[in-house]
Amino acid sequence: MDTFEFVPSPAQLSWTFGGVKAISRLRPGTTLRLWTEDAFSGLLHKNSHLPGERIRHGRFNPQTGPFHVEGAEPGDTLVLHIAGLTPARDWGVSTLVAGFGGLTSTDRTATLQDPLPERTWIYQVDPKAETIRFEAAAGEFAVDLPLAPMLGTVGVAPQGAEVRSSLAAGAHGGNLDTPEMRAGATCYLGVNVDGALFSVGDGHYRQGEGESCGTAVEGAMNVTLVVDLIKGAAPAWPRIENDEYLITLGSARPLEDAWRVSQVQMVNWLSELHGLDRLDAYQLLSQISRTPLANVVDTDYTVATKVPKALLPDRPGYGGAHRRMREIAARL
Amino acid sequence: MDTFEFVPSPAQLSWTFGGVKAISRLRPGTTLRLWTEDAFSGLLHKNSHLPGERIRHGRFNPQTGPFHVEGAEPGDTLVLHIAGLTPARDWGVSTLVAGFGGLTSTDRTATLQDPLPERTWIYQVDPKAETIRFEAAAGEFAVDLPLAPMLGTVGVAPQGAEVRSSLAAGAHGGNLDTPEMRAGATCYLGVNVDGALFSVGDGHYRQGEGESCGTAVEGAMNVTLVVDLIKGAAPAWPRIENDEYLITLGSARPLEDAWRVSQVQMVNWLSELHGLDRLDAYQLLSQISRTPLANVVDTDYTVATKVPKALLPDRPGYGGAHRRMREIAARL
Amino acid sequence: MDTFEFVPSPAQLSWTFGGVKAISRLRPGTTLRLWTEDAFSGLLHKNSHLPGERIRHGRFNPQTGPFHVEGAEPGDTLVLHIAGLTPARDWGVSTLVAGFGGLTSTDRTATLQDPLPERTWIYQVDPKAETIRFEAAAGEFAVDLPLAPMLGTVGVAPQGAEVRSSLAAGAHGGNLDTPEMRAGATCYLGVNVDGALFSVGDGHYRQGEGESCGTAVEGAMNVTLVVDLIKGAAPAWPRIENDEYLITLGSARPLEDAWRVSQVQMVNWLSELHGLDRLDAYQLLSQISRTPLANVVDTDYTVATKVPKALLPDRPGYGGAHRRMREIAARL
Amino acid sequence: MDTFEFVPSPAQLSWTFGGVKAISRLRPGTTLRLWTEDAFSGLLHKNSHLPGERIRHGRFNPQTGPFHVEGAEPGDTLVLHIAGLTPARDWGVSTLVAGFGGLTSTDRTATLQDPLPERTWIYQVDPKAETIRFEAAAGEFAVDLPLAPMLGTVGVAPQGAEVRSSLAAGAHGGNLDTPEMRAGATCYLGVNVDGALFSVGDGHYRQGEGESCGTAVEGAMNVTLVVDLIKGAAPAWPRIENDEYLITLGSARPLEDAWRVSQVQMVNWLSELHGLDRLDAYQLLSQISRTPLANVVDTDYTVATKVPKALLPDRPGYGGAHRRMREIAARL
Repeated sequence: MDTFEFVPSPAQLSWTFGGVKAISRLRPGTTLRLWTEDAFSGLLHKNSHLPGERIRHGRFNPQTGPFHVEGAEPGDTLVLHIAGLTPARDWGVSTLVAGFGGLTSTDRTATLQDPLPERTWIYQVDPKAETIRFEAAAGEFAVDLPLAPMLGTVGVAPQGAEVRSSLAAGAHGGNLDTPEMRAGATCYLGVNVDGALFSVGDGHYRQGEGESCGTAVEGAMNVTLVVDLIKGAAPAWPRIENDEYLITLGSARPLEDAWRVSQVQMVNWLSELHGLDRLDAYQLLSQISRTPLANVVDTDYTVATKVPKALLPDRPGYGGAHRRMREIAARL
Repeated sequence: MDTFEFVPSPAQLSWTFGGVKAISRLRPGTTLRLWTEDAFSGLLHKNSHLPGERIRHGRFNPQTGPFHVEGAEPGDTLVLHIAGLTPARDWGVSTLVAGFGGLTSTDRTATLQDPLPERTWIYQVDPKAETIRFEAAAGEFAVDLPLAPMLGTVGVAPQGAEVRSSLAAGAHGGNLDTPEMRAGATCYLGVNVDGALFSVGDGHYRQGEGESCGTAVEGAMNVTLVVDLIKGAAPAWPRIENDEYLITLGSARPLEDAWRVSQVQMVNWLSELHGLDRLDAYQLLSQISRTPLANVVDTDYTVATKVPKALLPDRPGYGGAHRRMREIAARL
Repeated sequence: MDTFEFVPSPAQLSWTFGGVKAISRLRPGTTLRLWTEDAFSGLLHKNSHLPGERIRHGRFNPQTGPFHVEGAEPGDTLVLHIAGLTPARDWGVSTLVAGFGGLTSTDRTATLQDPLPERTWIYQVDPKAETIRFEAAAGEFAVDLPLAPMLGTVGVAPQGAEVRSSLAAGAHGGNLDTPEMRAGATCYLGVNVDGALFSVGDGHYRQGEGESCGTAVEGAMNVTLVVDLIKGAAPAWPRIENDEYLITLGSARPLEDAWRVSQVQMVNWLSELHGLDRLDAYQLLSQISRTPLANVVDTDYTVATKVPKALLPDRPGYGGAHRRMREIAARL
Repeated sequence: MDTFEFVPSPAQLSWTFGGVKAISRLRPGTTLRLWTEDAFSGLLHKNSHLPGERIRHGRFNPQTGPFHVEGAEPGDTLVLHIAGLTPARDWGVSTLVAGFGGLTSTDRTATLQDPLPERTWIYQVDPKAETIRFEAAAGEFAVDLPLAPMLGTVGVAPQGAEVRSSLAAGAHGGNLDTPEMRAGATCYLGVNVDGALFSVGDGHYRQGEGESCGTAVEGAMNVTLVVDLIKGAAPAWPRIENDEYLITLGSARPLEDAWRVSQVQMVNWLSELHGLDRLDAYQLLSQISRTPLANVVDTDYTVATKVPKALLPDRPGYGGAHRRMREIAARL
């Protein structure tokens, strides 16, 4: 099995899905060992560092990639298994960005108030305790929170020759910002262009559901991926499978439309796996669905619909791809 | 300690929050043992029973109550601890109601398509196994799902002399349809009128997050409540506390506004409990929030924001009311 | 023809649709000459008067009424023709209410910013020039704007025994805040309770489409109405007809749902009047619809869909009720 | 003054904003005489032609352009005056596209119903009468509607190296689908890349506000544009000026956010032109705003905020650019 290691230089970082030449060509089955820069390109490393002063307009979420998967054609299914995620620095950072976030005015939920002020919090990582430390900016309050690494952005080149910012999400994946994108997850993405041209980035050492203020505990990440390809069967929107759950993702505004997308995708998936009539699948989903918000802050909001596999007969998705990925990952 | 048992006759059921005379007056500290009718007044008990044929327009969610709590005045906090919820029948029922539900046209997400057809599923309860059985309408598929009893509606009389249907939710509670309203939960509601005039109903034997098709596994319920009153301190929107979580609820459309309401309420609650600056609370919440959808189908959608108490210093809400309620419930 | 004149005393004002006893019983065909108080009960009459200091919580939009229309039963159509609207004072007032308005944080579009500050603008009426004068609070800017009187609230008692605040809108009408509700308009409302129990209020000397800041140029109004009743044929949502347009109103959040409601209502109306297939009506509407926003600030937002009658064959709505009303009004 | 005429060959059509090489370089002041293909590339010309059968996935709205404007740099203001729009064919076409439109299920307002069926309507143009003829698909109904030519798409290359489909709208313009984009309108667009790289297309012989079914009366168009450049002063979102109105456009979902964007832009514009405090501008706008919907169907919905210039002191926008353009156009 092939293995490819890659640490991008600053000049090799990319900022879009689509519109960028591949860093490398990979065969399906390749194990990737990648390093991803944090969402702020490492420029915010003190509490006094404010994004408005240090980040060039729109330059968030640098990507590691894109990678060309040999044989991938439009309509195929790219399989990305996250075998490992470990912090690549001993600190993470979160911040309020002016005009960005769920509880402030933004470029689109535009009001006449001043936006909330910018502020930065540095979190120290304790790798032994597997915690990060939140220290209040005002007062003495501090708590240690469990490390829970995840990737904010995972995506392929969009369809229709579009090029999307690494702040946007959609059917191509992108800035999904869901805590479900963690080690042990297998992500299925529809391929839109030859080679798929996927990239990853925006590591989070921890993120709440919804990503309220717009930024998680952002941090550089060491990422181990196993890449595979299924011919055909492209899902209309990104899907994830882990040992416990089938997960569908929808990205849209308003938030109910993101939810609707993820729900219809799950009705379809349940119908396919279990031969269910769609109204039966709708009924069953109504009683077993779990629906954590991913983010309510990005260009398009993202919602996850999760179904516990233990409640259903054993019908693995995508021909058992997740189980196969887990076995490969276990041998790494 | 007072105990009050009540099984409403059909004529005693009510259909609104506000606008109804109290069934009884209770002293704070009273234990209530109630019976609640199902959302369809028990009229749907075969798969061939369709709501459009058997339910009078808008007659959903009959309430048990309202109850007048002595001493409760506007601005006070009503405390309702759910000590027990057990199915009062050996079957539950879910259904598609024409023009209602998250993945069909509705009266407000109005389209020119025909709505999805009506369909009814009867679920058999196995009280020993603590399961309910889903049987597909088309084909042979069947699965047993764990019982997970909850109350869909818990509310008080609204402010401003309004009378709201038991299908609506708001700052007064009402048709919240959140799985968090289960045994072990302590619900805090702001009082708007003398006596609070709370009622409960709409028992669910199980419900997924979002209540996708608009109806859970609806069933008559035996409900044990412990009622208490805190003078003043009325929360602007309903809150719940259980052994593991602080929970705030927001109800609105679009769904992001329901989320915003619940999030701002949690920022306020965290600030109060821990003396946090609001921007620090916003930052902390961004990393620890859990946000299961309650429902995306009712008059106003409802979202829950949950914070794990274990991640925070021990500062019980409402002067330790939940712990006190748990002790009382343990002695019942 | 009967005529009824009524100037409510402060104690006779009401604040809800539903839940209030009728002021009087009227026969269909009655001409009403009413006085309506302004949205702030006349309490804001200097630029230094702020709503937060002078208005009791939620006490906006006092209503003149309700009136019981003899013979009106659920399913009937109440016809209200606005024969005349003239300012009853020589000043009007607009204001920023804290936490209310389209471009600030509100109770539901909740953010962590401070809401915009309160501010009040008194407008002088020049009855001869038929203008009102806007004077900027800061600086010397002033302009005279044409008087354009309208009623913000027109509604009946809601269905399902609900009682709604005079700040809310819905299928019962209510706080629609559309500039289309002006002299010359005939409003059709579905009747939900015996007698219909309609009321009016919230006169605006002028309002932009959308009512951006939440308040128009509010003013006491002399209102001349002609009341009629059509048995049956209740529209699902309020409709208006004037000499030039057929108009349907929809109230909901998000705003696209308010639009969808008004559009589906117009598809239905066009289909009924012209015998059109619904998809043909949808196509035709797509090319001739005018859609001014009514308000994007109230409990539910309201959108108007308008169709120019001149573009269509002459098929008067509701059996020519509008033309009949115009003839009656011309003789007053 | 330079004049440039251009009729694209099919191979010269483009389908995105950004990502395409310039057709030609123009100096500011150039008059452009262009031909634009219709939204369906001319492939639908009989009532039996359905888009699902004849249009390749996503291949809507072919663009004429892009054009490189010499000297245009990021932060500048591109001025496009529409001097003339005349139908280039004697027929137009509208259609229902499966899963697209305001009153059906879509890819994002996803439901489990079948979408509305596809259907096509050919409209005959009567150039002398200046009408187009709607003929119902079912039954005998037909009406002549006034020609009202406009351009659906006008835009520049987006910022951040994005490439957007000609179905999307945003701060770069694009698929705005507003009837305000008609002859006599001067459009101001912020420049994001050297040369601006603007293109136009998607001519409509007539469109209702909202573009309900998703398609207007689409038709090939002869377009006369006068192009100019203002250094600096880039508006954040597209603006239009005509003889009667100042107009700001906002594009977003939900629809209230599109409205908020356009409103804040107009508050800013009024403040700039008249030296108004922003809260005074908000107040004034609340009483004079007109807000026709542009479309409620595209990737992002678009709303126009219009202010009648006659109500305000004479302060021409952009240094009188519109008046200057009108004078140039009058001499063509």
